[in-house]
Amino acid sequence: MAKRGDRSKRLKTRDPVAEQPPWEQPRMRFDPLRAVSEDELEAIHLASLEVLSTTGIDFLDDTARTQLAQAGATVVGDRVKFDPALIETLLATVPPQFTLHGREPHRDLTFGGDHIIYTSVASPPFVTGLGRGRRDGNRVDYCNLIKMGQVLNAVHTVAGYPVEPMDLHPSVRHLEATHDMLTLSDKVPFVYSLGRQRNRDVLEMVRIARGVDDATFELEPCLYSVINASTPLRYDAPMLHGIQEMSSRNQLIIITPFTLAGAMAPVTVAGALVLQNAEALAGIAYTQVVRPGAPVAYGGFTSNVDMRSGSPAFGTPEYWKACLVGGQLARRYEVPYRSSNVNASNSVDAQSAYESMIAIWGAVMGGANLLLHGTGWLEGGLLTSYEKFVIDADILNMVTEMLRPIAVDDATLAVEAIAEVGPAGHFFGSTHTQERYATEHFQPMVSRWSNFESWDESGRLEAHQRAEQLANDVLAAHVDPPMAAERRAELDEFVERRVAEGGVATDY
Amino acid sequence: MAKRGDRSKRLKTRDPVAEQPPWEQPRMRFDPLRAVSEDELEAIHLASLEVLSTTGIDFLDDTARTQLAQAGATVVGDRVKFDPALIETLLATVPPQFTLHGREPHRDLTFGGDHIIYTSVASPPFVTGLGRGRRDGNRVDYCNLIKMGQVLNAVHTVAGYPVEPMDLHPSVRHLEATHDMLTLSDKVPFVYSLGRQRNRDVLEMVRIARGVDDATFELEPCLYSVINASTPLRYDAPMLHGIQEMSSRNQLIIITPFTLAGAMAPVTVAGALVLQNAEALAGIAYTQVVRPGAPVAYGGFTSNVDMRSGSPAFGTPEYWKACLVGGQLARRYEVPYRSSNVNASNSVDAQSAYESMIAIWGAVMGGANLLLHGTGWLEGGLLTSYEKFVIDADILNMVTEMLRPIAVDDATLAVEAIAEVGPAGHFFGSTHTQERYATEHFQPMVSRWSNFESWDESGRLEAHQRAEQLANDVLAAHVDPPMAAERRAELDEFVERRVAEGGVATDY
Repeated sequence: MAKRGDRSKRLKTRDPVAEQPPWEQPRMRFDPLRAVSEDELEAIHLASLEVLSTTGIDFLDDTARTQLAQAGATVVGDRVKFDPALIETLLATVPPQFTLHGREPHRDLTFGGDHIIYTSVASPPFVTGLGRGRRDGNRVDYCNLIKMGQVLNAVHTVAGYPVEPMDLHPSVRHLEATHDMLTLSDKVPFVYSLGRQRNRDVLEMVRIARGVDDATFELEPCLYSVINASTPLRYDAPMLHGIQEMSSRNQLIIITPFTLAGAMAPVTVAGALVLQNAEALAGIAYTQVVRPGAPVAYGGFTSNVDMRSGSPAFGTPEYWKACLVGGQLARRYEVPYRSSNVNASNSVDAQSAYESMIAIWGAVMGGANLLLHGTGWLEGGLLTSYEKFVIDADILNMVTEMLRPIAVDDATLAVEAIAEVGPAGHFFGSTHTQERYATEHFQPMVSRWSNFESWDESGRLEAHQRAEQLANDVLAAHVDPPMAAERRAELDEFVERRVAEGGVATDY
Repeated sequence: MAKRGDRSKRLKTRDPVAEQPPWEQPRMRFDPLRAVSEDELEAIHLASLEVLSTTGIDFLDDTARTQLAQAGATVVGDRVKFDPALIETLLATVPPQFTLHGREPHRDLTFGGDHIIYTSVASPPFVTGLGRGRRDGNRVDYCNLIKMGQVLNAVHTVAGYPVEPMDLHPSVRHLEATHDMLTLSDKVPFVYSLGRQRNRDVLEMVRIARGVDDATFELEPCLYSVINASTPLRYDAPMLHGIQEMSSRNQLIIITPFTLAGAMAPVTVAGALVLQNAEALAGIAYTQVVRPGAPVAYGGFTSNVDMRSGSPAFGTPEYWKACLVGGQLARRYEVPYRSSNVNASNSVDAQSAYESMIAIWGAVMGGANLLLHGTGWLEGGLLTSYEKFVIDADILNMVTEMLRPIAVDDATLAVEAIAEVGPAGHFFGSTHTQERYATEHFQPMVSRWSNFESWDESGRLEAHQRAEQLANDVLAAHVDPPMAAERRAELDEFVERRVAEGGVATDY
């Protein structure tokens, strides 16, 4: 024990926020797992094509149907049927890898290949944490969470509103909230596809914030939107308008069917994947009709429903298998792959952690390029938790470290150090250790490894309580990222004008 | 919401303990991950051989040194040096796969290959749960935890005392505790190698409990012991006596160096693995000197130490990497591989779950055949938790399900069901769903997927609280497994006699 005491005195007190791992995109350095054989994958693929060619899928927008008919699809009423060869032709133009440009160049991300991107949680209506219980989403918490994502290096992009700022009127919410997003963070922003005009406003705001002209903007994807099918087999108008506005300007679309096995999708994992794949293929194909070569990702989001309550479950064995097969399908089509960090727990307890870890395990081993909802998701996506946000950032930092190669060379193999210490010795005092101990191992923010006595004396804080303390430190560390004054002025002026114009008319 | 209500009424209330997944060994159906290249693996292997041939390793037992010298090792004082060719020769007789026989035949386990075995936690001195806080290990809790392991199908074997029954005097503890183990459970038992006589007593007790003669006993491995090196580079006498007693009778030895990077092992992962591998090779080689062909496993247990407190850390990125490389090494030698489910948390919080999940991820993807400490480990192995025991069993059941192939055929692909439901429909009412919904998805014991309102109304129980309730149900479900009356009488008589004789003399 004396030795332990001595040792701790030698190490400076660490600031876990200031000393978090650097901004960095992890790389997938293992072969993704194959949960189904090549034959089975082909069977899922062919079944999806059969669904698209025989049953078809509803596109609830005239423009979309006209474009698809011109591209060669069969259109009857709202229903669009795709010939297998048409799907193949349209998917051929999808870029397998591209740069997603940050508001500032040092935030550029590589999308696709073996590159991985983590995002913060998106869209929960409720929020909890910072000493207060579950409450409606609001602008103060929204801004706080944008700040958290800006400070934490584990968050690479802002995947939508980390909590819905419900106190902002829907007519101007996209203007005010995006203004916050672009001024509090310089990481790649997101737009919700809730009608054409909102897309157009946000596209213009991002162009202004980046300080680029329209031509450059269209050359450099720098904004993204998630397009969900209305499972089963339907794309609604706002989603299709989102594709039209975004893809036509070469901005990134994440096509994500939410296929809940047993509810809106077949109860079998294979069947839910057939439906997921049919919807994903149709959506991806449409982006290429709008603009061949427009960046698009394949979103896998198949899970199962609690057959007792009807609630969606996440981080289940079925979810994990679907993550792996989703990756196999995306790679088959050479389309970048999106997965998620999800759980169905109502609190930051063990369940929230093990379900999240199963989801992350599935995403990483499935070869995901984009881990959506990376930090902060709770309660099946209805609740954002500050505590979970910090814990997830710590977990994602660990995943990045896990994916880093092991250094194997004469120095690290340490044969000389082992000979020097010999049987019954101790390595702490050896030169080999002293030269490396401060930096050799990953240092977590949240985890505590102290013994029971120390933990007891310091108040028996559990992980979620330590994370709450850290959330305050993270917030305190935030500084507005610099933006050139003329861009800022133009952005402010744009938002002021559009708000004065009433934003986007709503009937509520 | 009405639909959800209706649905829940259609399903019977489930007894999660009675309806747990069946007794079954999972199979690893993926290629294990390779965390280092073949060249790097060879470098680690060669460095280990260099350690064994130049520095050597202390064997603190005359018999062992004599046997090793006769086998061709160089012995000077306590130090034994192995030529690389000798290691290769000795390892050639290790069986890559064998049957580990249960007390009753339906508990037989396949050890090695792609087969996986889960065990309960072993050896913590403290226990918590069942409504009471952290307390000294004792026989009542010990028996309860043996019962839990017997009831829960996720526990395949009893890997030692799930908590140390410290109120049993050490002179007779092995007799009383093993009697409990063999009468409360019919799963493969374990013996601690704490001196020759204890091994001999337990070997005889297991033979009696199985009702087999000595010849059959030696043909059928049915008992195991973990042998730890005294890292760095030393095997103590009790461990060597354990190998002598067990291997000579063809019983299973798990050689497990506990190589903590930065403390008793080099601070680098590669260096700690070199030391782990050198110690493992020496121990495994010795089992084959004692009896060529005796069953033995390669235990990987490299982690890193908290450089601030000196405490061991578990489920870290370094730990995960070491799990993968340990598996690569074991497969290189064609020796079955042991890993663990470990964490350093002091309570059943999010940390305990995410560290455990990282450990399980590493074990599974590392190709482990034996997951030691599978259920109940907390506080770096100092504490057994009833809650964690149940949560871990649930997690391991999920892992088993994750490793089960996805059914892909015409029925599961559900193309007809998708056509029948069509756009904007719902699958719950479809025949395809109705035929399968009750059994299609994994049903957890601990996880709750209910919405916030239901969770709130039912008392906001977190995972560890629900697990505590379940622990009572698990205990209540225990029944003594049948044992033929003549065996039971012989076992009772043996223990009575040996206890009367004073067991094994101790000086305390």
